[in-house]
Amino acid sequence: MTIFRRIILGEIPSYKIYEDAETYAFLDISPASPGHTLVICKSEVANLYELSDADLIATARTTQRVGRVLRDVLQPDGINVVQNNGAAAGQTVFHYHVHLIPRWENDGVFAFWQPQSLAKELMQELQTKLAN
Amino acid sequence: MTIFRRIILGEIPSYKIYEDAETYAFLDISPASPGHTLVICKSEVANLYELSDADLIATARTTQRVGRVLRDVLQPDGINVVQNNGAAAGQTVFHYHVHLIPRWENDGVFAFWQPQSLAKELMQELQTKLAN
Repeated sequence: MTIFRRIILGEIPSYKIYEDAETYAFLDISPASPGHTLVICKSEVANLYELSDADLIATARTTQRVGRVLRDVLQPDGINVVQNNGAAAGQTVFHYHVHLIPRWENDGVFAFWQPQSLAKELMQELQTKLAN
Repeated sequence: MTIFRRIILGEIPSYKIYEDAETYAFLDISPASPGHTLVICKSEVANLYELSDADLIATARTTQRVGRVLRDVLQPDGINVVQNNGAAAGQTVFHYHVHLIPRWENDGVFAFWQPQSLAKELMQELQTKLAN
């Protein structure tokens, strides 16, 4: 059982901001910025690949709902929505969760990737493989 | 009209990997890693806040579908799903889009945020504001 399941069950306290039958939203205890919120599904599912269609829809709806609340209440300059799958992608709790990170101009909390330029042949090869 | 709308209309070429009635997926031309894919809705909507429920669901489903294909075909060690709202959050094209970024161990393409520790009083204040 992950720590998120224990939070849903109330065994571990959390700063809950929303809950419905399928999802639960609470403040990240180690936030990237003030208001950083996690949206999780109540089902014990590790990642995006394994999520049921019902849980996929429910978490998407709660993510949008919380995003609008963060926008309205905190009035940030932007919000990053981030969902990590696998330790190599930064996932630390293996229960599906979506980060909502309020952002302000020049807050420096999040360093974006460096864009690469790949050879046209490689791009075409990737397309061929992935489009099937 | 954004560049993404022109891609959907076929006015600008793209490395398309999936398309259905509501969504379109193609390789990012300036990828963070090989296989970096963008999922967009066909509607001209700037961000998560404004997305219709139908487009929210359609893009979530295509994101999951593409995520499974990337996992199966490229066998990365992980995938980041990132969706940015607002220039301060790194959004550069103001047409709703979801990044899927395949990750490999120690690839260094993505620097995560530094976790902060906020005072309990501030966390409680945020909870009170956001839970209403």
